[in-house]
Amino acid sequence: MNINRIERLRSKLRELGADGALIGDAVNRRYFADFTGSAGLLYVDMERTALFVDFRYTGLASKQSEGWEINEVSGKRFTRSLAESADFSGRKLLIGSDSFTLDVFEVMREDFPKSDFVLKPRIWARLRAVKDVGEIEILRRAAVLADKGVEFMISLLKEGISEAEVAIQLEHFHRTNGAEDKAFDPIIAFGPNSAMPHYAPSRDVKLKKGDTVLMDSGARVDGYHSDITRTVFFGDPTSEMAHIYETTFESQLLGLETIRAGVDDVAVDRAVREFIDSHPEYEGMFGHGLGHGIGLEIHELPVLGKMDEGAPLEENMAVTVEPGIYIPGKGGVRIEDDVIVTADGCEILTRFPKELMVI
Amino acid sequence: MNINRIERLRSKLRELGADGALIGDAVNRRYFADFTGSAGLLYVDMERTALFVDFRYTGLASKQSEGWEINEVSGKRFTRSLAESADFSGRKLLIGSDSFTLDVFEVMREDFPKSDFVLKPRIWARLRAVKDVGEIEILRRAAVLADKGVEFMISLLKEGISEAEVAIQLEHFHRTNGAEDKAFDPIIAFGPNSAMPHYAPSRDVKLKKGDTVLMDSGARVDGYHSDITRTVFFGDPTSEMAHIYETTFESQLLGLETIRAGVDDVAVDRAVREFIDSHPEYEGMFGHGLGHGIGLEIHELPVLGKMDEGAPLEENMAVTVEPGIYIPGKGGVRIEDDVIVTADGCEILTRFPKELMVI
Repeated sequence: MNINRIERLRSKLRELGADGALIGDAVNRRYFADFTGSAGLLYVDMERTALFVDFRYTGLASKQSEGWEINEVSGKRFTRSLAESADFSGRKLLIGSDSFTLDVFEVMREDFPKSDFVLKPRIWARLRAVKDVGEIEILRRAAVLADKGVEFMISLLKEGISEAEVAIQLEHFHRTNGAEDKAFDPIIAFGPNSAMPHYAPSRDVKLKKGDTVLMDSGARVDGYHSDITRTVFFGDPTSEMAHIYETTFESQLLGLETIRAGVDDVAVDRAVREFIDSHPEYEGMFGHGLGHGIGLEIHELPVLGKMDEGAPLEENMAVTVEPGIYIPGKGGVRIEDDVIVTADGCEILTRFPKELMVI
Repeated sequence: MNINRIERLRSKLRELGADGALIGDAVNRRYFADFTGSAGLLYVDMERTALFVDFRYTGLASKQSEGWEINEVSGKRFTRSLAESADFSGRKLLIGSDSFTLDVFEVMREDFPKSDFVLKPRIWARLRAVKDVGEIEILRRAAVLADKGVEFMISLLKEGISEAEVAIQLEHFHRTNGAEDKAFDPIIAFGPNSAMPHYAPSRDVKLKKGDTVLMDSGARVDGYHSDITRTVFFGDPTSEMAHIYETTFESQLLGLETIRAGVDDVAVDRAVREFIDSHPEYEGMFGHGLGHGIGLEIHELPVLGKMDEGAPLEENMAVTVEPGIYIPGKGGVRIEDDVIVTADGCEILTRFPKELMVI
């Protein structure tokens, strides 16, 4: 059992004056109980750590969730079984308001007619934002695989290969090298398509001399995600694209230098954005946020973006740093690394070279 | 624009006395508006079909969602932009209570302070359960790929290959043959592992003579999922496993024969379950539901299971039929096809042979 995580959860209960927490989503079941089944409910209070699963998962739960009380529920009304397992009258139950749908909450209120609910958004996501030693070790391994994936993709770049073919080969490379899955659908964009930050690779777009090649990909290893972007040139870039590259590269280094524990997350985005916007020709061309937390989810807290409320970065948070400059119709450059926030800076997990590369 | 789907949605509005519907989940955005972006909100009333997206997706939305009013939202508070686009005072807004989380609903109530909400669980899932001609055509293509995948996996079965290697090669086969993705993580189980209906393939379990080989997999094609299971024997099966096979096979044919429009979904499960349970040695060994709807989700309505409320099957519903018999410690057999419900029976989409096969 992961005592530290349970202790942090219990601190939250104390802080909010709640008696127990109900957790029903896959990511948090895995985080707190190491349980990877597709359905189940966790209940944690000051005495109990209980897992409610259906018949399919009792074996798996016994193996994975050491030290937890395992309850087999017939049917799938987990909350009713929990309600029947103790007296919850007058108790305050904490739930994450972002991880329960309205219909499930309706059932929950029926099952606990005499309890009060404390609803908090993103409460477990906030806990998960700061990684422990074991998580950082897995993120390092996921990053190594992301690096190898970039190297592999570059080895594929030949005239006539399609964007989709690069994506398909990469996914297979990750899987055969130990990934559980891709971290997300890779973005492979040739030429002007690289100007679209959320492009989907096409089977019809073939590589040709002079193309910018933007590759955004990652691997999932033991549940944890890596996320790397490199942009290379297939043949010499125009002087405009080369300048975009160098500006993006400088801005990314600036982002990495700005990060350290105590700095406001929004301020990191702002520093990079102001640098890019200080080039009149690129003003407003960095159209997305600077980065996001990574962990059991590919996008988690904290958010490095201009729209966020703003909060200081903490030691051992894991974030991406991924500025980009996009010129519609021409092309775009994005450079992205995964880092761990440290007291005086950051540890960069992804190591593939970032100097302008011509294939 | 898909007029039929919009008309069915509008009929629901009339039926429930609602003025408009808000739809915020990916599957239903795709179903109603052909929009595949990762974020966005649909609003449909008797006059408007409106899509609210952020800057990343305006281009994609214009391309995919022909005939829809496209609104670009700065930031991501889609509901506020919708609220500002018209007067919603006193209007009744319909939402699916299974597709909005509590925190999003909270924001929604702030954005529409003078509106009433009508909450219905699974309302769009029920509409989607009956497929139209275009959907059935895509499901047929997805099933062809599922069949080819089984043939491919059988060609891989050599002494010493691991469960995970079969899974990894299959995923790559599906991708290179036109699938967008796997339909779900394939279940490849050798020997006694085949007795666990929700097993995850291992890199350490290698194929050996005498093993039962259970393969449950599928492909996603244009958003739609196929799902097929075949169980074969690597070397002659024991007479016990052979009998389990023949009994499962018979039960599966019985399930297929029972299906037709008008028959209660629970009754189809019951017929197959009673048949299996009529063999004293297998009583209670069919531990899961008989089948589930397939479409834009891998598990959708209707449910063919003993726990369901029960409702008549309708023409053009798409379901799996997948009985299994599992003997812990020894092995299990599952045989699964995808079918379309017709007026007098069903069209079987997956065609890979089902006779007992020894490799």
